[in-house]
Amino acid sequence: MVNDKVVGILGGMGPEATIDIFSDIVKHTKIKNDNDHLRIIIDNNPKLPSRQDAILKGGENPGPEMATTAKNIERAGADFIILGANTAHYFYPYVKDAVKIPVLHIIGETVLETINTVKGIKKVGVLATQGAMKTGMFQDAFKEVGVTVTDVPDDILALIHTAVFSFRAEGINESNLTMMKNAVSFLIENGSEAIVMGCTEIPLILKNHPINVALINPNDVIAEVTVKYAKHELDVREVNNKYLSIR
Amino acid sequence: MVNDKVVGILGGMGPEATIDIFSDIVKHTKIKNDNDHLRIIIDNNPKLPSRQDAILKGGENPGPEMATTAKNIERAGADFIILGANTAHYFYPYVKDAVKIPVLHIIGETVLETINTVKGIKKVGVLATQGAMKTGMFQDAFKEVGVTVTDVPDDILALIHTAVFSFRAEGINESNLTMMKNAVSFLIENGSEAIVMGCTEIPLILKNHPINVALINPNDVIAEVTVKYAKHELDVREVNNKYLSIR
Repeated sequence: MVNDKVVGILGGMGPEATIDIFSDIVKHTKIKNDNDHLRIIIDNNPKLPSRQDAILKGGENPGPEMATTAKNIERAGADFIILGANTAHYFYPYVKDAVKIPVLHIIGETVLETINTVKGIKKVGVLATQGAMKTGMFQDAFKEVGVTVTDVPDDILALIHTAVFSFRAEGINESNLTMMKNAVSFLIENGSEAIVMGCTEIPLILKNHPINVALINPNDVIAEVTVKYAKHELDVREVNNKYLSIR
Repeated sequence: MVNDKVVGILGGMGPEATIDIFSDIVKHTKIKNDNDHLRIIIDNNPKLPSRQDAILKGGENPGPEMATTAKNIERAGADFIILGANTAHYFYPYVKDAVKIPVLHIIGETVLETINTVKGIKKVGVLATQGAMKTGMFQDAFKEVGVTVTDVPDDILALIHTAVFSFRAEGINESNLTMMKNAVSFLIENGSEAIVMGCTEIPLILKNHPINVALINPNDVIAEVTVKYAKHELDVREVNNKYLSIR
């Protein structure tokens, strides 16, 4: 029997997202015995410079320290790495170039999952923080497969951002739920055929509220893909010379 | 400002317990900014030989591989280590001897928390797996501070063990809740003045059921102690030449 691959998680951006992905990987692993679970090496490093500040305010670039953390995970024995946050993927090239092992790409995998889930999709809505949206990461990745990301005006973007940070501080309440539902309505009214919940908190806010279009959860996607890759059920391939995908 | 210490977690025994301790540490950390969170390096290694099998059936000793995993965590930059499971502490000496950094001791800390919580306590009940109870770890650690652990006959021990493994497989249900409540009643009827929930699943099973004596949750205890130690609010000291404590 071939040994399972050792998973590496570059985390701490924030730690809640890392816990979420770690839990998702454990839940997605089918086990007969305890040691069917995967070995996972996590460097949960919240001491990295803020990704939001770097993107929105020209703050310190976290790329070089993310690269150092990735090397640390490689040295500790990981066979591949995932980045434990959507926004952090803006700095993906620093991590990819720093290590010899593959670095999976949440956003790339999310795009593939979306076009597999809604065949022939032309327009997708993305719920994410201002930092993530300003980078154009989602827009660029979907463009490569011919899908348009629904334009979101600043007031709706602020609504999503505020709901996420309110949820982080206070958990679910009437106010952040209403904000998020309004953002969802905007996306659907403007032609979104699926919605990507591009921030760890969003699936938690929306979990008891049925929505009429397909909902894609990037953390779930990356967890599923991670387990399959670690169990040698899928191979890695280069996509457009930009990121790695395993489908 | 002095930097926070980097936490190391030797985990994967099982992964759910590691997620629980990781989450508890994040919850116990008071933050103003995201980077007030602690850097935590986790080697979640479920590939280690079974601790239960080694203790109950003379299976392969996991000590040497736990030592290797601990060294890996030290090399990755941790300033101290915690073991992410109660039963694993039977093999604590292997880990302690393998690394130069301190290794905190959940059971030692739990004993100290118990005698701080119930002043003058003479008798304590412990809910734990058969493996953990057979080792006498809890009995020995409480004996050193003059506290007796309530004897548990094999049928009650089997009840606890079955409830824990049923919860792992199916989550909470009427049957495992009843088993656990019966075990609690037995401990209280036999003079236990506090109850140690010596297994990650037990607080989850009992969480909505008020119990008349103090309940001690070792994962909560170690999380709190970990945060204080990492933030330089407590120092480490040797207890009876056996384990390290930070109070």
